[in-house]
Amino acid sequence: MFELILISALVSGLAILSAFMFHRFMLKHDAGTPKMKELQAHIREGAWTFMTEEAKVFAVVMLVIAAILGLIFYWEVAAAFLIGAVLSMSAGFIGMNSATLANARVTNAARKDSKSALNVAMSGGAVMGLTVAGLALGGLTLVIFLFRGSFEPSVLHIESKAVPFISQIIGRNINFIKAALIVSAYSMGASLVALFDRVGGGIYTKAADMGADLVGKAEEHLPEDDPRNPATIADNVGDNVGDVGGLGADLLESFVGSIISVIVIMLYVFVARNNADIQALLGEITNGGVFAAANYWWLIITPLIIISGGIISSLLGVMFVLMKKNKSKLQGTLMNGTRISAILTIILSYIVISLSPLNLSVFWAVVIGIATGIIIGYISEYYTSSQYKPVKRVAEADDAGAAIGITEGMAVGMISTFVPGIVVAVAITMTYWLAGLIGVAFGALGMLSFVGMTVAVDTYGPIADNAGGIAEGAKLPHEVRKRTDNLDSIGNTTAAIGKGFAIGSAAFSALALIAAYMWSAIGSVGEVKIPTIEIISNNPLIGGSVIAALFLGAMVPYVFSALLIQGVSHTANQMVREIRRQFKADPGILKGKSKPDFNKCISITSKSSLRKMVLPALLTIVMPFIIGFLLGRFALAGFLIGALLSCMQLAIYCANTGGALDNAKKFIEEGHYGGKGSEAHVSSIIGDTVGDPLKDTVGPSLDILVKLMSVVSILFASLFPVYPVIFP
Amino acid sequence: MFELILISALVSGLAILSAFMFHRFMLKHDAGTPKMKELQAHIREGAWTFMTEEAKVFAVVMLVIAAILGLIFYWEVAAAFLIGAVLSMSAGFIGMNSATLANARVTNAARKDSKSALNVAMSGGAVMGLTVAGLALGGLTLVIFLFRGSFEPSVLHIESKAVPFISQIIGRNINFIKAALIVSAYSMGASLVALFDRVGGGIYTKAADMGADLVGKAEEHLPEDDPRNPATIADNVGDNVGDVGGLGADLLESFVGSIISVIVIMLYVFVARNNADIQALLGEITNGGVFAAANYWWLIITPLIIISGGIISSLLGVMFVLMKKNKSKLQGTLMNGTRISAILTIILSYIVISLSPLNLSVFWAVVIGIATGIIIGYISEYYTSSQYKPVKRVAEADDAGAAIGITEGMAVGMISTFVPGIVVAVAITMTYWLAGLIGVAFGALGMLSFVGMTVAVDTYGPIADNAGGIAEGAKLPHEVRKRTDNLDSIGNTTAAIGKGFAIGSAAFSALALIAAYMWSAIGSVGEVKIPTIEIISNNPLIGGSVIAALFLGAMVPYVFSALLIQGVSHTANQMVREIRRQFKADPGILKGKSKPDFNKCISITSKSSLRKMVLPALLTIVMPFIIGFLLGRFALAGFLIGALLSCMQLAIYCANTGGALDNAKKFIEEGHYGGKGSEAHVSSIIGDTVGDPLKDTVGPSLDILVKLMSVVSILFASLFPVYPVIFP
Repeated sequence: MFELILISALVSGLAILSAFMFHRFMLKHDAGTPKMKELQAHIREGAWTFMTEEAKVFAVVMLVIAAILGLIFYWEVAAAFLIGAVLSMSAGFIGMNSATLANARVTNAARKDSKSALNVAMSGGAVMGLTVAGLALGGLTLVIFLFRGSFEPSVLHIESKAVPFISQIIGRNINFIKAALIVSAYSMGASLVALFDRVGGGIYTKAADMGADLVGKAEEHLPEDDPRNPATIADNVGDNVGDVGGLGADLLESFVGSIISVIVIMLYVFVARNNADIQALLGEITNGGVFAAANYWWLIITPLIIISGGIISSLLGVMFVLMKKNKSKLQGTLMNGTRISAILTIILSYIVISLSPLNLSVFWAVVIGIATGIIIGYISEYYTSSQYKPVKRVAEADDAGAAIGITEGMAVGMISTFVPGIVVAVAITMTYWLAGLIGVAFGALGMLSFVGMTVAVDTYGPIADNAGGIAEGAKLPHEVRKRTDNLDSIGNTTAAIGKGFAIGSAAFSALALIAAYMWSAIGSVGEVKIPTIEIISNNPLIGGSVIAALFLGAMVPYVFSALLIQGVSHTANQMVREIRRQFKADPGILKGKSKPDFNKCISITSKSSLRKMVLPALLTIVMPFIIGFLLGRFALAGFLIGALLSCMQLAIYCANTGGALDNAKKFIEEGHYGGKGSEAHVSSIIGDTVGDPLKDTVGPSLDILVKLMSVVSILFASLFPVYPVIFP
Repeated sequence: MFELILISALVSGLAILSAFMFHRFMLKHDAGTPKMKELQAHIREGAWTFMTEEAKVFAVVMLVIAAILGLIFYWEVAAAFLIGAVLSMSAGFIGMNSATLANARVTNAARKDSKSALNVAMSGGAVMGLTVAGLALGGLTLVIFLFRGSFEPSVLHIESKAVPFISQIIGRNINFIKAALIVSAYSMGASLVALFDRVGGGIYTKAADMGADLVGKAEEHLPEDDPRNPATIADNVGDNVGDVGGLGADLLESFVGSIISVIVIMLYVFVARNNADIQALLGEITNGGVFAAANYWWLIITPLIIISGGIISSLLGVMFVLMKKNKSKLQGTLMNGTRISAILTIILSYIVISLSPLNLSVFWAVVIGIATGIIIGYISEYYTSSQYKPVKRVAEADDAGAAIGITEGMAVGMISTFVPGIVVAVAITMTYWLAGLIGVAFGALGMLSFVGMTVAVDTYGPIADNAGGIAEGAKLPHEVRKRTDNLDSIGNTTAAIGKGFAIGSAAFSALALIAAYMWSAIGSVGEVKIPTIEIISNNPLIGGSVIAALFLGAMVPYVFSALLIQGVSHTANQMVREIRRQFKADPGILKGKSKPDFNKCISITSKSSLRKMVLPALLTIVMPFIIGFLLGRFALAGFLIGALLSCMQLAIYCANTGGALDNAKKFIEEGHYGGKGSEAHVSSIIGDTVGDPLKDTVGPSLDILVKLMSVVSILFASLFPVYPVIFP
């Protein structure tokens, strides 16, 4: 039944084709006045400069890692890694390209009315969403197709390979299932690029934003996006490289992670199908309970087909939004599009699973995953939208002073962990009860299946934001800016849901990856069996190492976040000095007589954010090796779980604190507590500046941290000793 | 060998006696001018009012809980609980009483010179330190002495008791070792009071501080501690009830927790001494490896004697500080006092363990515990003292604006989790390697053994701070305030070390308590054995419940912190309104012609902080029951570990962020970046206000959260089902 793979090949082709169509549709619109076209060109140029600079750094790192993978394992593993990396990079590029072409076109459409502006922005977003989904699925399909020799049921086994040098150093051969390594390497390539994109883009976008605000707004009292501010273009570039490029790579990575974790687990299960425990597990998740070679391909490819259903659902959701004639309630239209995608995904999953040898317990795991994502999304909205109490209370606190406002914002972020904590715990318990670790992995798969729609809606927001910047820069009539602001604020709500969704799905797919790690690292010691890990063990060789590693894992996200925040503040500092220098060197800039040097600001931010991305990325890659080599494989699982626990809470706290502080500012700007220029407004600007790096740099990067560490662990697990080496 | 208990009885008597002597010594000094005496009287009155109000709330809660304990278990358990609660409350009262008598006396001594002021402040602190240590040890000695019938080796066994109603509801008898329940109940009494003290006192102190600053300093530009500010007295009262009363109860609780966790584990080990695994463990930690009835008492009472050694060491450390003639380097004197206590404690532990049937692996666990506490303490100092780079960088960032300053402060707090994470992980691995969970428990014991000295030095700080307030209020010459400020700043460094120490020891003693819980809950299912917990289990009855509970545990500290922060900001808000009202109603206040209504401010803060303490306290007590009843005993262990992981990181982050922001402000006030009144100073004040509740309310309360939840879990473990009940 290998032919099943045709379905995922066709669907990914369809996704890429329709992305191309949306791109064409968007390009048909005019980009407006010469001034608008000029601004767009500036932004495009800045974004391309940064992305190409970043790609050069990537290229070196990727080739080095590929060489290492090739030397230790096989060339196929290295190739899969490179395919993942290149596709992830391409997704970022294509999305960014389309977003920077769409922005001025949205502005121009907004000169007519809001509806056509929404259509242009949405098709720009759809390009990104469908590209991400199509490339991710297509790449994985390609990898399996190219290296199908290693996936054949007849050759599947735990290989033992003697690696020159390495096997001597570690004192034994390394053991793995080759096919599992291939899909994991593909995932690692995607994750690594995503981390770079998120961290680099996140530092870029916030440093440019802070630099522009601190001198432009606070010292010189220029309005937002004023063309006299030398950092304006950098700020708009940041929205594209951070919010569009970063987001695309991020969700692609989660998407891939959730699929490959299912495949890796399935491969180990298949190899160990004669083990009694595993047979019992199989009995629970399959009709008939036999994992025969006859239905082997069904089980490997089912996840791909479920995802294909998600892509079709996303495509239909996007079409719904674009086709809908009566867009009087724009927000309702966007939400309905998402709802339609979710429901269609559930229906298609049901059909796929009914046709496969898997039984309905797996389907229910998928449904639980989707429901969990949506609930966490709504909770994020509650805590960060100015329609509800929490943000109103932050605005009220801003009125009493900046410190009280920030304090209240932090409290909102902290308390917003409550419901997600409970929902995730319930979802884990239920999916595990349905089908063990396989159930958890299918839950993650469900949550991410209609990622195309989520990305489309999430990308739509920064496009509308940029369109507003261009309206300001090109000095268009006030009502144009008002329309783009309206589009942006609608996007904010859906984006808040999207962010919550990203965090929830990250937690779940990280857990699925950790489960895959456990199968690869622990399930394969001696005979293959269902892996278990003791927090505290009577086995003196494991002893307290797992709990020690839990502590180390819980610490890493904090250090990682600190490095990111410092990256932002140091880069912003450099920007502040440069902007002040420009204003001083040429007083004509502030009078609007001479043009500021936009490129200098862009190049400073680019260089600094690329430099500041190194240390956090290194920490992420190196930590699993340190823990693995010193404390062994069981402890590494503990480390990953500790990191996940800490990451999830910290990510929710950061994202919602930032969101609440941001929207409290917007709420005040709407005229509450004295509106713009009031004491409350000044406080809220300080609050927003504190919250911004938390929300747009730290939060999203934390989502990737654990997943990248997990996939690194899956790949290199066989290098690590089983037990700690520190105590002989 | 039950007579060994005489040693701990004698030493705790000695501690209380010397506390009394130090109190007498301190009282011999004059409290100064009538104005100073009046201010002191105001502060004392306010502090007594709050503490008695609090005690009334306590009394009701304690009696209800004691009744429940008596009904479910035995009257001895209820009695032990009440003894613990009353002693913990007394420690707070005695320390607070002595501190509020010392403050004016320190001010008066500072009119002469710094050295005599140090002596008075130090003896005030010593009263608290020795009272805490003496009462904690004395109380436990009393409990064991009174109920020695239940501790006799001949009667020790796992009892099965049919409790009316309850056994019907849970469908079986409850099982426990009565002696373990008695010591745990004693610990729970102490912990519960500590939580109330920390949370209530913490909200009180920061709300009063913020209220006083926000109106007094920011709106009316009054200096700190100005007698025209209606909130001045409440602010000074806050220092006593929060920093003195709260701290004392907190460390008493850690101290008791670390002792009883060893005793509980020893009791289970003794009962199960015939199990082969346990015999192997015994072989590692005892000379000869036999846990015979002959040396039973040695093993139960050894922890008490090790602690007795710590108390003697603390006493000698305090004496050293007071006796030292040449106090030219005041800070060095304080640090040397602490060092002397640490070294003496190590020596005395060596002697005690050599004489006991335990072998040296236990001694090394004690040494590792002490070293870990000291290292974490020094790290805290590095990140929060203005002598080092991190705080200087925060001050530099303050110069660029409040938002950048706060962002940098948060980054400092986050990165400061790095070394403590590693140190704790190493310490856990090593102590576990030395003697399993017993080793971890002895590590915690070591860390807390010389708590008398730590509390003495920590209490000295707020006394000096209060003395400064009195100097300001009584309008004494400028140099007096300068001397008390100097004493205060010396105290700050040692207090930073003390805070780090408190967090490190809390993590370790929480882990020891969780270990004790595991022995009580899991080690006693079926036959008694060494407990283990699987993160993810093949046993379908456990399944994913442990990992779900890990997520829930990691979430709780965030919600708890949010409730505390909101408690502070809401109370501060009420204060702000009241102060504004007073200034408006009587313009004479600001002119210094009429006296403000101090009492109104005190009563508002008291009432509000007592009310705001209810929800976080309830969360702490109720959560273990919810998890235990729904998810069972294994999951409850996971829940506690998740909470501990999250708590430790969050506590370090909060404490050091607040400390760095506070000291950056002080650094700027010393004249850097324009000194007082500069832009940087304004930024740093906003930063300090954000950091204050993090440092003084959230951080210290988080230390208690997990320990209280653990001890509640130990006590009620036998009520919970072994496996989750939610999936049949």
